[in-house]
Amino acid sequence: MSAVPDLPVLTDLSALTAALRTHLDGPRRAVRDRCRGLDHDLLAPPPTPLPMNEHRARVSAQVEALARESFVAEGFPERQGGLGRYGDGVTAFEMLGHTDLSLFVKAGVQWGLFGGAVSMLGTERHDALMPRIISGELQGCFAMTETGHGSDVQGLLTTATFVAETDEIVVHSPSPLARKDYIGNAADDGHLATVFAQLVVGDEHHGVHCLLVPIRDDDGSAADGVTITDCGPKLGLQGVDNGRLMFDHVRVPRTNLLGRYGDINDDGVYTSPIENPSRRFFTMLGTLVRGRISVAGGAGAAARSALTVATRYAAQRRQFAKPGVADGGDGQEVVLLDYRTHQRRLMPRIATAYALQFAQNDLVVAMDDVLSGRVSGELEQRELEARAAGIKAVTTRHATDTIQECREACGGAGYLWANRLPAMKSDTDIFTTFEGDNTVLLQLVAKSLLAQYSSTFGDLDTLGIVRFGARLTASTFVERSAARGLLQRIVDVAPGREENVVFAARTTQLALLTEREEHLIEGLARRLRRADEPGADGFAAFNNTQDHLVATAVAHVERTVAEGFAHAVATCPDPEAAAVLARVCDLYILSTIETHKAWYLEHDRLTPARTKALTALVNEICAELRGVALPLVDAFGIPEPWLTTEMLDDNLAP
Amino acid sequence: MSAVPDLPVLTDLSALTAALRTHLDGPRRAVRDRCRGLDHDLLAPPPTPLPMNEHRARVSAQVEALARESFVAEGFPERQGGLGRYGDGVTAFEMLGHTDLSLFVKAGVQWGLFGGAVSMLGTERHDALMPRIISGELQGCFAMTETGHGSDVQGLLTTATFVAETDEIVVHSPSPLARKDYIGNAADDGHLATVFAQLVVGDEHHGVHCLLVPIRDDDGSAADGVTITDCGPKLGLQGVDNGRLMFDHVRVPRTNLLGRYGDINDDGVYTSPIENPSRRFFTMLGTLVRGRISVAGGAGAAARSALTVATRYAAQRRQFAKPGVADGGDGQEVVLLDYRTHQRRLMPRIATAYALQFAQNDLVVAMDDVLSGRVSGELEQRELEARAAGIKAVTTRHATDTIQECREACGGAGYLWANRLPAMKSDTDIFTTFEGDNTVLLQLVAKSLLAQYSSTFGDLDTLGIVRFGARLTASTFVERSAARGLLQRIVDVAPGREENVVFAARTTQLALLTEREEHLIEGLARRLRRADEPGADGFAAFNNTQDHLVATAVAHVERTVAEGFAHAVATCPDPEAAAVLARVCDLYILSTIETHKAWYLEHDRLTPARTKALTALVNEICAELRGVALPLVDAFGIPEPWLTTEMLDDNLAP
Repeated sequence: MSAVPDLPVLTDLSALTAALRTHLDGPRRAVRDRCRGLDHDLLAPPPTPLPMNEHRARVSAQVEALARESFVAEGFPERQGGLGRYGDGVTAFEMLGHTDLSLFVKAGVQWGLFGGAVSMLGTERHDALMPRIISGELQGCFAMTETGHGSDVQGLLTTATFVAETDEIVVHSPSPLARKDYIGNAADDGHLATVFAQLVVGDEHHGVHCLLVPIRDDDGSAADGVTITDCGPKLGLQGVDNGRLMFDHVRVPRTNLLGRYGDINDDGVYTSPIENPSRRFFTMLGTLVRGRISVAGGAGAAARSALTVATRYAAQRRQFAKPGVADGGDGQEVVLLDYRTHQRRLMPRIATAYALQFAQNDLVVAMDDVLSGRVSGELEQRELEARAAGIKAVTTRHATDTIQECREACGGAGYLWANRLPAMKSDTDIFTTFEGDNTVLLQLVAKSLLAQYSSTFGDLDTLGIVRFGARLTASTFVERSAARGLLQRIVDVAPGREENVVFAARTTQLALLTEREEHLIEGLARRLRRADEPGADGFAAFNNTQDHLVATAVAHVERTVAEGFAHAVATCPDPEAAAVLARVCDLYILSTIETHKAWYLEHDRLTPARTKALTALVNEICAELRGVALPLVDAFGIPEPWLTTEMLDDNLAP
Repeated sequence: MSAVPDLPVLTDLSALTAALRTHLDGPRRAVRDRCRGLDHDLLAPPPTPLPMNEHRARVSAQVEALARESFVAEGFPERQGGLGRYGDGVTAFEMLGHTDLSLFVKAGVQWGLFGGAVSMLGTERHDALMPRIISGELQGCFAMTETGHGSDVQGLLTTATFVAETDEIVVHSPSPLARKDYIGNAADDGHLATVFAQLVVGDEHHGVHCLLVPIRDDDGSAADGVTITDCGPKLGLQGVDNGRLMFDHVRVPRTNLLGRYGDINDDGVYTSPIENPSRRFFTMLGTLVRGRISVAGGAGAAARSALTVATRYAAQRRQFAKPGVADGGDGQEVVLLDYRTHQRRLMPRIATAYALQFAQNDLVVAMDDVLSGRVSGELEQRELEARAAGIKAVTTRHATDTIQECREACGGAGYLWANRLPAMKSDTDIFTTFEGDNTVLLQLVAKSLLAQYSSTFGDLDTLGIVRFGARLTASTFVERSAARGLLQRIVDVAPGREENVVFAARTTQLALLTEREEHLIEGLARRLRRADEPGADGFAAFNNTQDHLVATAVAHVERTVAEGFAHAVATCPDPEAAAVLARVCDLYILSTIETHKAWYLEHDRLTPARTKALTALVNEICAELRGVALPLVDAFGIPEPWLTTEMLDDNLAP
């Protein structure tokens, strides 16, 4: 007996595709449809790799064309000349993830990072710049990362020293390690930079602040005191002009300080609405949350493009004949997607792509609520940041792994530029690093979970490890106690019977994920409490739990993504689409549990008989969903001209 | 109490490095040292990505220069103008894996594939060509893969039909799927191709044979009836001119058939020393085993380059400060390699690189024995092929995963072309596909294990699944029964004591790997026996065991590689190097077991307490070996000019 009831007989696959797509498009379907109508010839990746400078020029022209699209203005408030529809703007950018990813990144630098910093960190005196930024007339850079400090932004070396005598701020790079590095839009096009630097007013150090520094004169040459160099060719994203900036005592007016969270007044006195310097710093960074959400969006889009191409190829390509008629077969060559190993490569990744798209849709709704001010409060802001960090890390990991798998699953054809996977792979490879290195982000997520746990149970001393003291809503922990009782009952009863039946109920599936997350958090708290005893080496204690922190964060994201997927299934209005989605959700959750089956066995949550039954069940669901593999990828709704490849030429179909 | 005795106090790290390198270099140290003296400026990857045609021209010039090196001739027997030192030749090619990988592949096509096919499949009448092939004067292609058939070589569509009237063979591509595809050296430089096609003599089809077809005239234009197109840009290997060939009834003399294993005599009659067509086919393919061995070598070399660069960066780069003096720390910024997550990324991969290099050295010795004729027999030939297939699959997987991890571990710096990881990543990405798709190769390995098992225990019916009926030496199975008893005793006793002590003995470590391999093979045999019952669907039965087949092959390769590593430790003459190598071997084996810990728990071979202790032990060994991480990568012995990067500039060291 299988734990999986059969899918309904699906009579109309195009109706199924349409219903799936509508639900997957989510609340911003109209935005997605508008983007599907964009001029793809204009926005497409170059049909053949271009010399770096030609590719850059091409992307600059694309950015100019994009500036005329309304979704650029959507990302900014009305008082700055924008439209104040933040969620729509981010969703439109996500759709750019199906075009040339150099364009996605270059536009993200100009409007998301540079424009976003001026918009969110500036004061009224900077609003006047915004229309020229939105129109693309004023091109800029986001100069945060330095050669010596990337993840550790608080450790930046660039200084911004207020000089009362001239009412100016002097920006300086004191060493080669202080060089601003990997800065998009710096090598060619940027004229103004939002520079993050250690602010010094009089004798006082106020920590990292952001200020505007012109880096180029009108004629395009480097401004006085600014040295600009080119990062040169990269693995991908050749259309983005990444560069390096060094400042030699560059003077800018005091009013160039983007002073919303820390300003210098006309009397030359530093003032801030947030007294605690650490809280101030994290509040500033927190306003830039959109960057991570956009990167997750673009990564998810690229992974969907790759899965669409690879699944179609797998459904067309044949290799090795079945046994002949004499041996009970029909002698036909087998379609790749009929092989179990091939199903195992693609089907769980399609399921994950669904899960993450629903998660992204939900995250954008939450972001829109916070940015529009409909929801406010530090707690909500911190929760949004933690969610964004977790989804960014998990989605970019998914994209890198999935595109790699798709390349390999297409064999030699996947290696040819004409089949688009090479550009997807090379361009997205840095997504696991930029906008927050994934390993660092996952540790932030875990620390915020610890803070939440601590505030709920009050039994965790700080140890300095919860420096990023975000407090999330604490209620979820209490709610989950009920689920745990349920799990225990289900796991305890009926051993020896059909072992896979236990995996059929969504509540059990979710309880299994919740159980793992909670156990990891509790274990972490216990280890850190022990490490906080007198005489313990703080760094060693932190370091010994580092892999535990990362595992905890991943478990948390997996649980929340699964809950979101379950909700999406439950709210799908089309019965056939809902039935298919339910099975895709089963596959996402059960293959996730399977990935961690050693944990479930080690912690006595599943018996060996059940983990073996789980693997068999995942195989079975892969085989079942293979029948709707094409509708599943078609429902991603990527316009056909955006998916042109050579290998899917009908002439090559056997 | 730890299961790991402390490493000896190492006073002279450069002596340690030298001793490690000597042992790792293996029996062909002199060849490696000779290659270390090659002109790196000449052979290096381009310092910046070149337009495709410039890169191709550069590589063609490099190949011309290489032709003057003696190791090219080493790969061919003396009667063909070679030197007959096969192992030396393959080892020299492995060293090219540290230079531009386009050169490695282009040279591999010319001398390994094209030259190898003429040398191994041709008869005396073809020996006359060899001096011009060795000198590079005659450039050629290896035209096996078609658009429609890659892994399934027996399914090739190109036909070679003997015409008695004119004593010619007509070569023809009957459909677009018959097009020869991804053929190296075809787009620009090749003049002669070794074409694999279905041989038809009279009414008889004799299966796939190889014959010489001129594809270009002296002036470089396509020969009559041959259509040559360019595969265009690729993810990497831009310096290799991959192309496509279509044949329109191209006539070549009968004597162009490379007829060692199947010829047409002067009377127009087909003759072959091997009666069984399937055995004949696999014998022909088997002679080309060097290609897979060379690909494994190049992949291993590229992974070592990446690990060297990433480990040096990790030992230099600092991020985040420790707690300050007031909190019991020293406030210093932490070197990346001191973080557990970073150790976990790099140290087990360094251990695997060691394991695979020792395995490669051993494989080359076995290959040299067979090719030189010192060892002969079909059994030995089949065993060599299975070993080569397994090592190729596992080493290329290791390279792809490791170079990816190194890129990410170097953050933004890893994405810059100047830091070399992008080229390593892009160029080696296809290694998992070419010279045999890894998924297919692993199934071949598993099938040969099954045949061996079947011949030992006589209880497996064929089911057609063991079509590749290789028989390996059967003695190992018997030997291992003893090890199993040992394992059982060790695993059974002393639960509750120090759980990690069980992992200390090498015999236990190896017994754990052997246990898994044997259990997987036995399970596979059992499943296939059941599937062979009357009424069973042959394809479904095969397909349902496909993931089981792949897991079995990997387990087999891991066990044999571990045994080889253990032997290398035991025979290391330098005591300090031996002590370090022993720990590296521990890390390789224990992190491999850890990867499969779900299996050990599911199958009751390890208790949860022991798998947890295992993880702690792997962490501990990573931390311990971190102290010798630099000597470990220095011992790879890659000449410094071959490792130039921008990020390891001393000026950027904090």
